[in-house]
Amino acid sequence: VFLELDGRGSRQAQLTRALKAAVLAGRLPSGTRLPASRALAGELGLSRNTVTASYEELAAEGFLQARVGSGSFVAPIPGHEAAAQRADATPGASASQPLSQFAQRAREAYRRPLAGAGLGELPFNLQYGLPLTNPALTTAWRRELAHAAAYTSPNYPEAAGRADLRAAVCDYLARRRGLQADPDDVLIVSGTQEAVALSARVLLDPGDRVVLEDPHYVAMWRAFVAHGAQVDTVPVDDDGLVCERLPDVPPRLVCVTPSHQFPLGSVLSLPRRLALLRYAHMHGSWILEDDYDGEFRYGGAPIAALRSLDAHDRTLYVGTFSKALFPALRMGYLVVPRALREPFRMAKQLSTFGTPAIDQAALARFIQSRGFERHLRRAAQALRTRRAALLAGLREHAAGVVEVRDSQAGMHLVAWLRGFDDARQDALIEAARARGVGLHPIAPCYLSAPPRPGLLLGYGGVSPKEIEVAMARLGQALACV
Amino acid sequence: VFLELDGRGSRQAQLTRALKAAVLAGRLPSGTRLPASRALAGELGLSRNTVTASYEELAAEGFLQARVGSGSFVAPIPGHEAAAQRADATPGASASQPLSQFAQRAREAYRRPLAGAGLGELPFNLQYGLPLTNPALTTAWRRELAHAAAYTSPNYPEAAGRADLRAAVCDYLARRRGLQADPDDVLIVSGTQEAVALSARVLLDPGDRVVLEDPHYVAMWRAFVAHGAQVDTVPVDDDGLVCERLPDVPPRLVCVTPSHQFPLGSVLSLPRRLALLRYAHMHGSWILEDDYDGEFRYGGAPIAALRSLDAHDRTLYVGTFSKALFPALRMGYLVVPRALREPFRMAKQLSTFGTPAIDQAALARFIQSRGFERHLRRAAQALRTRRAALLAGLREHAAGVVEVRDSQAGMHLVAWLRGFDDARQDALIEAARARGVGLHPIAPCYLSAPPRPGLLLGYGGVSPKEIEVAMARLGQALACV
Repeated sequence: VFLELDGRGSRQAQLTRALKAAVLAGRLPSGTRLPASRALAGELGLSRNTVTASYEELAAEGFLQARVGSGSFVAPIPGHEAAAQRADATPGASASQPLSQFAQRAREAYRRPLAGAGLGELPFNLQYGLPLTNPALTTAWRRELAHAAAYTSPNYPEAAGRADLRAAVCDYLARRRGLQADPDDVLIVSGTQEAVALSARVLLDPGDRVVLEDPHYVAMWRAFVAHGAQVDTVPVDDDGLVCERLPDVPPRLVCVTPSHQFPLGSVLSLPRRLALLRYAHMHGSWILEDDYDGEFRYGGAPIAALRSLDAHDRTLYVGTFSKALFPALRMGYLVVPRALREPFRMAKQLSTFGTPAIDQAALARFIQSRGFERHLRRAAQALRTRRAALLAGLREHAAGVVEVRDSQAGMHLVAWLRGFDDARQDALIEAARARGVGLHPIAPCYLSAPPRPGLLLGYGGVSPKEIEVAMARLGQALACV
Repeated sequence: VFLELDGRGSRQAQLTRALKAAVLAGRLPSGTRLPASRALAGELGLSRNTVTASYEELAAEGFLQARVGSGSFVAPIPGHEAAAQRADATPGASASQPLSQFAQRAREAYRRPLAGAGLGELPFNLQYGLPLTNPALTTAWRRELAHAAAYTSPNYPEAAGRADLRAAVCDYLARRRGLQADPDDVLIVSGTQEAVALSARVLLDPGDRVVLEDPHYVAMWRAFVAHGAQVDTVPVDDDGLVCERLPDVPPRLVCVTPSHQFPLGSVLSLPRRLALLRYAHMHGSWILEDDYDGEFRYGGAPIAALRSLDAHDRTLYVGTFSKALFPALRMGYLVVPRALREPFRMAKQLSTFGTPAIDQAALARFIQSRGFERHLRRAAQALRTRRAALLAGLREHAAGVVEVRDSQAGMHLVAWLRGFDDARQDALIEAARARGVGLHPIAPCYLSAPPRPGLLLGYGGVSPKEIEVAMARLGQALACV
């Protein structure tokens, strides 16, 4: 029999695979006597041990039978040969079989691109969401992980998250976000995306209505669209979500970024906060409060979380460590109304069984020891410097052209382009790209048409020096378009 | 105005909360002048700084207005008072609002208990799934984590998983499981549960049919039921899934444990492997191969993965590190057919955005450096000793009563109880519990009635010495029932 080894993996694995294929294809019918191991080894240039081991493997799996004193024979495989011919004559239904509706909707949702994608190869990429690199944090986190690895139980963690981390999150929220929460209200998740996906699963059936702000975070929109929700959008102005525009047909869920609208930066005003809470209470809607970078503010007092004003327990509060620490961590939390504790724990357990325990233990200790808040102070100082460099650079190199929407918070600014049309914006982005500067339009964040061309300038992932160079090159790019 | 501090959090937070509540309830109507900070501080026994800071916080959030020279006044909140009265008159729809159908089905699914739950407080808990504690592994893992923390990019990891880990998984599968896979076929997930939940989302609409073995892993059943799938079961015998009993109405998905049936331990025979693959090919069904503890075998050659025989690319192969390493890690992998690569990546990204990157990097290096396989050899040796202690203890203390179904693999045995009825089995479990020994019936793993009373004896989480004591006490318990 002709055996061809395919060169993938060990020689034994190749031989075993080749022999199986020959048996299954009928080239070695049942009852065939295989060559003696020494002979086959010589023929194929293998060691005899390799052939013997392969024969043993095939015997253990039922392909061969050894008969004492007379060698190895291909085993009968009842029903195989006739059935294999039938199966080959019947084309499998695989090609025509559709994926689930979820998978089909997901594919549709991915046609809408994420804002700020691509351009990762440029030396000066002003992309929103890039982490602030920070050697002190790397050192501290490494220490916490090593410590946690030594004492964390190797068993399954609680589905809702470790009790120490849930308590630490509550302490932090009370101190920094004016939010009183019970550790039993907290669910540790892998970040905003998991919080949104779980909320969709627990609260929404396909066809149910969700309200998003417009503009918004595209990955959140994708999650709801893939889930099958009917997404309505409500515009945003300088006071945040325009509550008067909330739909008359009440949604099951309203998603807002009240502390720092994404991406425009406005703060939801007190009258609107109260109006939104009333709306949710009257219509039986839930509110998802995404506090995606509430940690970093550069002026004024921090604004308490919307949830802290909610007398009727309709608000789900989502926080992430992707901005406050770094996205590779994949950790965040969801504070849920009391009525939703149990359904969310079940949904989390059904989905992943729980979040990695050593990471959780390390984070709990980092928060409890106040290392986290020390890091936040350092990070806020670094971000403040970067932000100042960006504002100074825009004043120096783009005065009169860009109009900055300054939000006193976060890790990005919105720069509207005065008197630009889309073609000129695209030309600017291209001219900047040719100079190594990654600029990202704000348009993908809008489901409707944006009011005018503008850029979303992230400063978390670039140093002050890099920002200075990037702004000078932006000035050159502006001179060409 | 009467202000009561609630004692939760800092004094400033308490005062701010009390003042907000008074404003929102109308006890401090708009235009009301607040007491001077010094006066209020004296009245409430607070420092004046606390009161001033609280007033500033309230002003920033829009509750108060400061007028130069004349103090702080409650701000007008347009529309609040009248609207609040209307809202109070309208009972919220919250109480009557149902959760999603997913959440309702999840609640139903959780009525069926997990096998082996509870009894965690007992000193000799023979629960399946408890990890093998291993100081050498803790040390090695701590070192890998610390190393990975220092060099892993802090940015979002790829949704499918880090390329180094996917490649390491493919090397491992080729060497140990006879499985040739392309790193692009691999999705890093948090374990079997996430693999199952993602498969349900990508492949099944509510109402679609799934086949599970009976008995099976209850958490998998729960995931499909919560997803809304129609679950059919097919019995298992000494050759694994009885393929002739596969339903005539073809399911979208057939879930099997071919290397080591859970929990009975049988190995799916070669004729049935081929029959199952033909069935899937002819009917356009997918197969989910759960290789939950394929790493540990104590006799005979390892059996190659079912997927390695699949010429038509219908098999999803699931592996977990919960048994080979430890469950707190929350890491596993899914090898998918080529046609499903993209939908699974999308589903994973929509669900969690990706698996924690430092953990992935640590695991990739642990596998590449062969530290993982060194650990597996040590762990297999330790498990072999435990298994021998369990078998010896059963022979000594339970001879004639238990009939062991010995599977030559894994971290548990099934012990059928000869001549027991359910009442006597329950009495035995209770008598053992009273002696500190945790015994777990096999019945919860069955959706149908089990053939007779039996126990699922896990030996991963108990030392040989503990097993010896536990068996002696089992003997005492048997003497009482």
